[in-house]
Amino acid sequence: MSKQAVIELAQQLIQRPSVTPLDEGCQQLMAERLTAIGFEHESLFFVDTLNMWSRKGTQSPLFCFAGHTDVVPTGPESAWHLPPFSGLVQDGYLHGRGAADMKGSLAAMIVATERFVTDYPDHRGSIAFLITSDEEGPFINGTPRVIETLEARNEKIDMCLVGEPSSSHKVGDVVKNGRRGSLTGFVKVKGIQGHVAYPQLAKNPIHLVSPALTELSQTQWDKGNEFFPATSFQISNINSGTGAGNVIPGELDLQFNFRFSTEVTADELKSRVVSIFDHHGFDYEINWTLNGLPFLTSAGSLVDATVKAIEHVAHYAPSLQTTGGTSDGRFIAQTGAQVIELGPCNATIHKVNECVSVEDLEKLTDMYYHILIELLA
Amino acid sequence: MSKQAVIELAQQLIQRPSVTPLDEGCQQLMAERLTAIGFEHESLFFVDTLNMWSRKGTQSPLFCFAGHTDVVPTGPESAWHLPPFSGLVQDGYLHGRGAADMKGSLAAMIVATERFVTDYPDHRGSIAFLITSDEEGPFINGTPRVIETLEARNEKIDMCLVGEPSSSHKVGDVVKNGRRGSLTGFVKVKGIQGHVAYPQLAKNPIHLVSPALTELSQTQWDKGNEFFPATSFQISNINSGTGAGNVIPGELDLQFNFRFSTEVTADELKSRVVSIFDHHGFDYEINWTLNGLPFLTSAGSLVDATVKAIEHVAHYAPSLQTTGGTSDGRFIAQTGAQVIELGPCNATIHKVNECVSVEDLEKLTDMYYHILIELLA
Ligand SMILES: [Zn+2]
Ligand SMILES: [Zn+2]
Repeated sequence: MSKQAVIELAQQLIQRPSVTPLDEGCQQLMAERLTAIGFEHESLFFVDTLNMWSRKGTQSPLFCFAGHTDVVPTGPESAWHLPPFSGLVQDGYLHGRGAADMKGSLAAMIVATERFVTDYPDHRGSIAFLITSDEEGPFINGTPRVIETLEARNEKIDMCLVGEPSSSHKVGDVVKNGRRGSLTGFVKVKGIQGHVAYPQLAKNPIHLVSPALTELSQTQWDKGNEFFPATSFQISNINSGTGAGNVIPGELDLQFNFRFSTEVTADELKSRVVSIFDHHGFDYEINWTLNGLPFLTSAGSLVDATVKAIEHVAHYAPSLQTTGGTSDGRFIAQTGAQVIELGPCNATIHKVNECVSVEDLEKLTDMYYHILIELLA
Repeated sequence: MSKQAVIELAQQLIQRPSVTPLDEGCQQLMAERLTAIGFEHESLFFVDTLNMWSRKGTQSPLFCFAGHTDVVPTGPESAWHLPPFSGLVQDGYLHGRGAADMKGSLAAMIVATERFVTDYPDHRGSIAFLITSDEEGPFINGTPRVIETLEARNEKIDMCLVGEPSSSHKVGDVVKNGRRGSLTGFVKVKGIQGHVAYPQLAKNPIHLVSPALTELSQTQWDKGNEFFPATSFQISNINSGTGAGNVIPGELDLQFNFRFSTEVTADELKSRVVSIFDHHGFDYEINWTLNGLPFLTSAGSLVDATVKAIEHVAHYAPSLQTTGGTSDGRFIAQTGAQVIELGPCNATIHKVNECVSVEDLEKLTDMYYHILIELLA
């Protein structure tokens, strides 16, 4: 199997314009390759989202590659140097929407698995692929529904490698071994509208809320831990006022977000916010969206294998981090599986001229291959 | 001269739909009545605004009635019980846009002056009318330009009665003997936009400004004095955020307003605000609009005459107040003139179904007449 194999497959995937929640035949292409080497394929279509679950073997442990075939929109195509769905290689880089997030990783997973199965036909355990087409979207009918299906039939993932672009400067320099939780609050502060010349007849919601905002923005929610930075709080939106200069507004709208560590729970954060608001004594309504719980895979066979494989291929050790946004890893981690994320450099993701280094993609394939060897050979 | 005279003239003025900056012949009607009793009339048209200056006599002291012929828009006419420009009398009330603010007062001034000039043909001093048609608008080409013209030729108002609807429950229960100043600040706080997952790369302007807002809203700017309530500070508008929940905004816009007493100057307020912002250490730009300086006519012949006239006509003493919004009185007071405001009840002004009690309007005419007697007979 030539090193060129991973680039060719990545090109075929990039040329399918699978903007969320479309899949455009990417999963079929992957399924055909996997079926050819002994995988059993299941298509799982929920509402508008195509997902796949392909598995080879029935034994434990079950190692799973996870990822997504959907990509974010290209924005104006004229801003791209090369057409975003061309998959052209130029100056050592494979170009196109999804090259780094994460069709390059998908190709590397397939090619590494083909090589492993060829080299180790009698490997122990099982290998699976959990692929969705809505990771970039509302993540409702993708990974969470597949996990539900697996749990319902008691099929248990032991270790999962998510192909999200975790790397910073060179492939494998950063592995995510967890992610922070994300909790969003929507607040409406209720005052009484009036004229600025008659403040005694009004209640200014901006004045009412500002001491609470000061307290919220200065609170230390926790100190983080060995794996997580301290929980952070950010107000993303505040709006109040009629536009007129002589009117005291009657309402104020506020939106804020926590990125939280495993040192605190979402319920603790909620009750601490409510108690700060209540302490300042004004009328308000609050609604919450829990975007994701934090997860952590701090030690064990998966982290060990990943670190070893990276050191073997690249001759450096990865930094284990839990920073950045959320990922589908959170849904898989909730089942008790070990979860890590390893993929290419993320400098160009979600931007124009997304690309991935050909050399990095070949190294990534090698890393995935050696992880399979560490865990299942 | 029958008591009916004031109602008839008020009706004729109301029937002229003089929405700011239109005059629609109101001033011509007033000028004709005044010229008939010996006034010299001057029309002063600036840009889009018709003003008048009519004067009888050349001697000191110069007593001036001041007011405006323009009215605020009616809003949807279907919301009115009676057509807003009909000037109909029903159940003892004269109805229509401008009835209380301030065509009723204008009619009362004219009729009181006619009566005074008839009864006291050899009165001392001079009487003038300073009438504009943009008091409800941007007040640029109205009273300030007339005052400029008078000052340029050294014509000096000694005492001025503005006909704004000062009364609260019954005519003459409140006289304004001053007004607070109004100062507006426009602030742009500059942060650095970023993703909520990477707060260390961003600067959140909402977090930066909130301690300063708390301090501003809790500061005692002064304690007011015998005539003025304490200076008040109100934030009227605050806006920041892209709408997205995961973006730390890069900028925040803020607008606030002071209503200030004679215990503090606009410059002092500005420098105290700037020092609070500077103390909190963030980047911002601030722009100011001085909407009006405070003025006060605390004692003297005009206040004495007004109090006596009200007591004579209504058998109660007025309360002298400086509360409420700004008025054109501030431009006249800057020349050193004594200025008071006395007009009908203001419960319906700037609203649908604006109206004035016929009895109040007749009493107001009597009060104006007795003020003229006190000052010039
Ligand atoms: Zn991704
Ligand atoms: Zn008015």
